[in-house]
Amino acid sequence: MSKHLTKRADDYSKWYNELVVKADLAENSAVRGCMVIKPYGFAIWEKMQAELDRMFKETGHQNAYFPLFVPKSLFEAEEKNAEGFAKECAVVTHYRLQNDPDNPGKLRVDPDAKLEEELVVRPTSEAIIWSTYKGWIQSYRDLPLLINQWANVVRWEMRTRLFLRTAEFLWQEGHTAHTTRAEAITEAQQMQDIYATFAEDFMAMPVVKGAKSDSERFAGAEDTLTIEALMQDGKALQAGTSHFLGQNFAKAFDVKFTSKEGKKEYVWATSWGVSTRLIGGLIMTHSDDSGLVLPPKLAPIQVVIVPIYKDETQLQAISDKVAMFVKELRAKGASVKFDDRDTYRPGAKFAEYELKGVPVRIAIGSRDLENGTVEVARRDTFEKQTVAQDEVVSFVLDLLEKIQQNLFNKALNFRADNTTAVNSFEDFKTIIKNKGGFVSAHWDGTAETEDKIKEQTKATIRCIPNDAIEEIGVCVFSGKPSSKRVLFAKAY
Amino acid sequence: MSKHLTKRADDYSKWYNELVVKADLAENSAVRGCMVIKPYGFAIWEKMQAELDRMFKETGHQNAYFPLFVPKSLFEAEEKNAEGFAKECAVVTHYRLQNDPDNPGKLRVDPDAKLEEELVVRPTSEAIIWSTYKGWIQSYRDLPLLINQWANVVRWEMRTRLFLRTAEFLWQEGHTAHTTRAEAITEAQQMQDIYATFAEDFMAMPVVKGAKSDSERFAGAEDTLTIEALMQDGKALQAGTSHFLGQNFAKAFDVKFTSKEGKKEYVWATSWGVSTRLIGGLIMTHSDDSGLVLPPKLAPIQVVIVPIYKDETQLQAISDKVAMFVKELRAKGASVKFDDRDTYRPGAKFAEYELKGVPVRIAIGSRDLENGTVEVARRDTFEKQTVAQDEVVSFVLDLLEKIQQNLFNKALNFRADNTTAVNSFEDFKTIIKNKGGFVSAHWDGTAETEDKIKEQTKATIRCIPNDAIEEIGVCVFSGKPSSKRVLFAKAY
Repeated sequence: MSKHLTKRADDYSKWYNELVVKADLAENSAVRGCMVIKPYGFAIWEKMQAELDRMFKETGHQNAYFPLFVPKSLFEAEEKNAEGFAKECAVVTHYRLQNDPDNPGKLRVDPDAKLEEELVVRPTSEAIIWSTYKGWIQSYRDLPLLINQWANVVRWEMRTRLFLRTAEFLWQEGHTAHTTRAEAITEAQQMQDIYATFAEDFMAMPVVKGAKSDSERFAGAEDTLTIEALMQDGKALQAGTSHFLGQNFAKAFDVKFTSKEGKKEYVWATSWGVSTRLIGGLIMTHSDDSGLVLPPKLAPIQVVIVPIYKDETQLQAISDKVAMFVKELRAKGASVKFDDRDTYRPGAKFAEYELKGVPVRIAIGSRDLENGTVEVARRDTFEKQTVAQDEVVSFVLDLLEKIQQNLFNKALNFRADNTTAVNSFEDFKTIIKNKGGFVSAHWDGTAETEDKIKEQTKATIRCIPNDAIEEIGVCVFSGKPSSKRVLFAKAY
Repeated sequence: MSKHLTKRADDYSKWYNELVVKADLAENSAVRGCMVIKPYGFAIWEKMQAELDRMFKETGHQNAYFPLFVPKSLFEAEEKNAEGFAKECAVVTHYRLQNDPDNPGKLRVDPDAKLEEELVVRPTSEAIIWSTYKGWIQSYRDLPLLINQWANVVRWEMRTRLFLRTAEFLWQEGHTAHTTRAEAITEAQQMQDIYATFAEDFMAMPVVKGAKSDSERFAGAEDTLTIEALMQDGKALQAGTSHFLGQNFAKAFDVKFTSKEGKKEYVWATSWGVSTRLIGGLIMTHSDDSGLVLPPKLAPIQVVIVPIYKDETQLQAISDKVAMFVKELRAKGASVKFDDRDTYRPGAKFAEYELKGVPVRIAIGSRDLENGTVEVARRDTFEKQTVAQDEVVSFVLDLLEKIQQNLFNKALNFRADNTTAVNSFEDFKTIIKNKGGFVSAHWDGTAETEDKIKEQTKATIRCIPNDAIEEIGVCVFSGKPSSKRVLFAKAY
């Protein structure tokens, strides 16, 4: 593959696809729509997992593991949920292969090994989990039940893109059960907040918190809360959702508890999830025409040190010097790589780490040794600076924080520049067509209007923002009265 | 379910099944043969994962993720591997459900959504991974490739038992590629050593390292290294395997590299894995008629503190006192739970933590407050001791180490007492029948003898131990010459 990366302005979609592969994040596999997550991409996912898992546990959640398969009869139980996922699910029908009598050396499905009941590969786990919760919940003492699962799920999408939409993806799915409606709603909101905090503080990706409209809601939910981010091409990305499920699943699976007062009541539920899609969002929020740009808090390698040397003696002298501050940087929690491979030249190494988005690069040559300096380059702004060796540790630690902050600010400014309030459908269409981004507009609250706007502009309601201000207005499309603006955008 | 636990001596198998469920580790699910791993059981798995993952990374391995599905044509490519797993694999044949016209409200497989090629749910990932490695490996510079994956796999077993043998299980599978046979063999041995270290140092479960005989070898391997543990009922448990795959998969998937000398050569491979089966081994190695016994290094809760109080004032005084040493214990890395639930009495809490195998229990009542003491009880020996409050931190930390060591020693003694060298087939049969355990015996090296011994005694060759001494002997069954003893046992 060519080392040249397509420019974002030329073809954003091609730029993205190339970058994912060239930066060694992921690639398509032999299985239609399924990806291979390569070690460098997986290392980012591990960092995301570690932070999210910590946040979940700090708020009282425990991890568990439920089966990959959902028997068809359970899958059917919550009607809307089943309807929402039936069209795109992988179905196991047999449990054995046998030698194909017509094709020596080949296998075929053994017709005698047909399952009595088909198994759906989980597209989401509400059904299997709520059928299990029935056995776990008897009394108010068993509640709240706060459980999370890290798992793979499968949705047979027709058009797939690495990380953003794949047939199999990795995610976490929280499934909680509560005694009251209010407590469940509070839980759903808490998880939306946690997702927003993670997106902003770790991914440096600003998000709008809001609720989905009826037509964009999760199948089986009463309310879907979302965090929405804006990508550099002006399209929105739904980055995480938290659902208030009401008593829908409790009723479908007959899960009741005895209250303190001795009454049998249906349990209230939430579910919430983020997936490897976040990696797609991370890439599209920060990266540039030179390659990946990673926020330090999620970068597998935060600092790379490249020695510039003519011979073994010089390399040895550099290595000795470097060892001192590498040790100190690591002790302070920075992940540092000293790349002394002799199979690649410094220029090739620089290009590799630029493509892979390593936040800070330190170069050190023989002149630096004489002068007691190093050269520090930051990936986000390409700025270079000569730094005294005895100051490099504090300089780099400080720089990592600055880069994290700079990436967030840059993305926040981009979003501000690309969020437009409009008051007419003409303006709406013009903005969506020529500029993109979020369009803040009044909407009459009907699915009919939403559909028509989508039909004419391809823009959908991303969310009704949590912080939307009550104001008197009229729907940009129908002219009917509206009390708050909602956010529209074309979306991934 | 009754609180009473069946005694091991009465029905070991029943004791195990009851204990897994009563201690909240796992339960059977609505899907035949698949388990739900409950939060307490999953917390043990997370501890295992964390230690193993650290050990893998320290030896240069990186994590990645490969697809859940294996297209049938790839699955077929390595003939022996395919043959070994074809009989027990879940097969996806369709990608959509639709409303069943004959049964309103029910779904059925959409006959128009049949896959062109069936997908096998991975029973192990050699095929999908080696088809990917073909694109990753060109030159000796790309080697060694040292990759691990944490994943779920499915093997359609007919007789399943929680943790020990389930249709779906969680595991890690390492897949490495090397330039030379010697390097691959060294890698396979290294991973066997890592598994043994983990089993002994963390699980407190002594293991025998050895190689499998031809008939017990992994399908597609040239050599299978194993670690074998002995359970309390005298049956062996294969706890982890590491395979030298030769060039079998490289040839099946045409994976070649250009050597330093410019020659094209097939790559050498290993694969290695441990699974949630380890939790079954952990339970059966240490637990007793009162419930689970967990080694401190893998216990989700190492120390539980139960307050004994009559009123809120006493509870408050106890809580204040406890807070001081809880903080200190946690700072030293101990996981401590203070159970101040007012919905259960101390006796019920004692019983719960005994059943759940918490290594150390501290009780503190109003008399203790007066005396400046606490009562410390250890789960492994049931010993209780009064300890001064200002010594409790160092006492408990020391005790955790002692318990870890005691469990290992106890298991090691058990194994020594239940390993018998025999020199005649009569003795062999008597020992297997009446005593069980490992039987160390000479074997002529043929599959025929192995089969016959299995037929007559149900014992199989667990391994040819790495440390078997060369000695002149004759096969206990055939009387043919043999140069070393191998280990037989009935096995899980």
